[in-house]
Amino acid sequence: MTNAVCEWQPPEQLRQLLDLEMRDTGEPHDRLLKLCQDVIRFSVKTSHPRFFNQLYAGLDYYSLVARLMTEALNPSVYTYEVSPVFLLVEEAVLKKMIEFIGWKEGDGIFNPGGSVSNMYAMNLARYKYCPDIKEKGMSGLPRFTLFTSAECHYSMKKAASFLGIGTENVCFVETDGRGKMIPEELEKQIWQARKEGAAPFLVCATSGTTVLGAFDPLDEIADICERHGLWLHVDASWGGSALVSRKHRKLLRGIHRADSVAWNPHKMLMAGVQCCALLVKDKSDLLKKCYSAEASYLFQQDKFYDISYDTGDKSIQCSRKPDAFKFWMTWKAVGTLGLEERVNRALALSRYLVEEIKKREGFKLLMEPEYANICFWYIPPSLREMEEGPEFWEKLSLVAPAIKERMMKKGSLMLGYQPHQGKVNFFRQVVISPQVSREDMDFLLDEIDILGRDM
Amino acid sequence: MTNAVCEWQPPEQLRQLLDLEMRDTGEPHDRLLKLCQDVIRFSVKTSHPRFFNQLYAGLDYYSLVARLMTEALNPSVYTYEVSPVFLLVEEAVLKKMIEFIGWKEGDGIFNPGGSVSNMYAMNLARYKYCPDIKEKGMSGLPRFTLFTSAECHYSMKKAASFLGIGTENVCFVETDGRGKMIPEELEKQIWQARKEGAAPFLVCATSGTTVLGAFDPLDEIADICERHGLWLHVDASWGGSALVSRKHRKLLRGIHRADSVAWNPHKMLMAGVQCCALLVKDKSDLLKKCYSAEASYLFQQDKFYDISYDTGDKSIQCSRKPDAFKFWMTWKAVGTLGLEERVNRALALSRYLVEEIKKREGFKLLMEPEYANICFWYIPPSLREMEEGPEFWEKLSLVAPAIKERMMKKGSLMLGYQPHQGKVNFFRQVVISPQVSREDMDFLLDEIDILGRDM
Repeated sequence: MTNAVCEWQPPEQLRQLLDLEMRDTGEPHDRLLKLCQDVIRFSVKTSHPRFFNQLYAGLDYYSLVARLMTEALNPSVYTYEVSPVFLLVEEAVLKKMIEFIGWKEGDGIFNPGGSVSNMYAMNLARYKYCPDIKEKGMSGLPRFTLFTSAECHYSMKKAASFLGIGTENVCFVETDGRGKMIPEELEKQIWQARKEGAAPFLVCATSGTTVLGAFDPLDEIADICERHGLWLHVDASWGGSALVSRKHRKLLRGIHRADSVAWNPHKMLMAGVQCCALLVKDKSDLLKKCYSAEASYLFQQDKFYDISYDTGDKSIQCSRKPDAFKFWMTWKAVGTLGLEERVNRALALSRYLVEEIKKREGFKLLMEPEYANICFWYIPPSLREMEEGPEFWEKLSLVAPAIKERMMKKGSLMLGYQPHQGKVNFFRQVVISPQVSREDMDFLLDEIDILGRDM
Repeated sequence: MTNAVCEWQPPEQLRQLLDLEMRDTGEPHDRLLKLCQDVIRFSVKTSHPRFFNQLYAGLDYYSLVARLMTEALNPSVYTYEVSPVFLLVEEAVLKKMIEFIGWKEGDGIFNPGGSVSNMYAMNLARYKYCPDIKEKGMSGLPRFTLFTSAECHYSMKKAASFLGIGTENVCFVETDGRGKMIPEELEKQIWQARKEGAAPFLVCATSGTTVLGAFDPLDEIADICERHGLWLHVDASWGGSALVSRKHRKLLRGIHRADSVAWNPHKMLMAGVQCCALLVKDKSDLLKKCYSAEASYLFQQDKFYDISYDTGDKSIQCSRKPDAFKFWMTWKAVGTLGLEERVNRALALSRYLVEEIKKREGFKLLMEPEYANICFWYIPPSLREMEEGPEFWEKLSLVAPAIKERMMKKGSLMLGYQPHQGKVNFFRQVVISPQVSREDMDFLLDEIDILGRDM
């Protein structure tokens, strides 16, 4: 089965096929080579033009070169003396990203994932609100409360739980029909929390929600944050890349008013998993003050060079990979215009797909997308005449999982599905890769129809 | 300057030498190639046999092959459907590591760094102690207190601050002259904290401290944890690899009594930055219960395969790199015996270096090492006759930084130094790489003498 997106094997079978056991003595090289072949064979080809399963896809060859270099160099980015080049590269990339956000200056750090960036921001907002927490902790303090939309990424809950804030202190603000936070609802919730004696400290807006690809109205939200003195974090992990497109950056209008932004170039800009920046507007060294532990064995004060380059103490990590470098390499190679073209191309293809869905029988769009998430149902022939009542939705909810099973077993395509906010299982098509064409979009719809037409 | 460990340039000069600016249009391929050459040229060669600056060094070619493969495959390890092979590999590696700890069964996860593993453990212990915290947070609760040695890694403070516990609630237990936690002092501190109304919940022992390479007495500490009903976490990020050596595993006697263990194969076992496991004794799915957020778009419950393999919800990350795979490849290639030999070899070379230091004039050992950290002063000729009073120590404190500057500028060697627990700046030599020989140890001492003999 060549050229498949995946060669599906259930866990028990795959375990049999691979020789996973580590033994006392090593294996000969021909065995190892066979193992490598099997690993590649049974791994999902995330750079395949028909892999649409996640918010990343495709392969940028410049970024790949950078990644191969860093794997061979095996650096760890904490101090200038061990990672001189990669620290300067990180600084340059952060500076450029800050420019695209629209700040004059700022600070930042690359993290292992957007979830981690969101955690950083939450902790930073908490520290800004109450610096004593670093030493004293939260015990005895009022309930710290944050606000985010009902469509936010699940890392908000993870962060609140990890940071000792508690998931119940995440107030989920209602969204409109397109998945955007309703500013009036946000303000109501802030008043309500205050009335209940809680301590509001943070609003997390989302630019590009995970499922629907919705963009919260940042300007209106920023007004509210200003009125209430709240930190505004924008989770633009997915949508941030629209900033490089003059045509589409309006999706994030008002982002310059944020206090912090999470933006993952490994998604739309294909820098490779992982490449995730947290950007911070503050230039008073808040990141350092909040995170430093000043380990004397690593961050010696009597070094012979300018130790402001030893940025490792801004991080919760000790060893850290040089994730900015791979993005830098792509940016150098294709230029800002090249990045812009990729975003424009992905969004143009998304439009094409939307129009095709509208034309085809048996396909039903959930809503007009703003970005590269196209959410739709496939309605198999047996349901097409049925009234849209409870029985219809119940039956329809079984369709996407069944088609997903078939496409995985066939290996022709990978596409995600989910139930969401009362809507039964639907497909979410994510368009990213510049290697993807209109033919792939047509194939996608044809293939779903082929896989589901007997249902 | 070929074959140098590094080609030192101060930040301002290096910024001039590299063309860091990202422009609107891309650069031609010959420019990019030159850039790649410069990046390599000015990067520190961490796999050079004379790089002793961190707790990692060297390059394992099997691991490198694995890393090149995964960079090309670009997987993200959250669900079985996107990362079937890497999830099974992670499971197999965790199982094997759990065996070496001495548990019958257990659970675990690979994280971006030992610091992050320590955070996981701290949160897990807190959750076990008070599961309500996940939802309710810490506000209104008594001061949660944890105990670790004065020699612990700085990530303990970072974790306590990040998790909302507060650095003041980390009780640092006194150590003996060799850097080991004194169990009686630990118990005293637990009683004291109780008396003050705090809520002790966790003891973090260290197996292989960062500076001295000390191993806390786990059996005695485990007795105390049992008596007081406290979670025992062992930070064996650095020392854990001694477990694969029958000769040296006694350093970690009692580790099977821990509730959780952090162990980084990227250090002594050269898996490549990063490769860091958190291992947990509990098999009641505590990790999942503590960390899950159950995102419906990723962890669908109606999948067609056994979703217990979708382990991503155990993580604070969403996208996650397949760090277990590179270690697995090395283990497959060299076998447990090969890993054991590496550890034995590094520790034998450490002994060799210690004996050489004792023989040489002008070198003074801080203490007999237990592991691969050899801490020593170089005493330049001008100080050799001086009495060891305040003036001597003040002058000596300037020697290591000055020699470090010279070695960096010459590029002959990289070695760390630090002041520590009242001791003035001393060198810390870390022996890891199997590519390192006795000649390199001799070179190290000769070179320090050459660089410092005029001081």
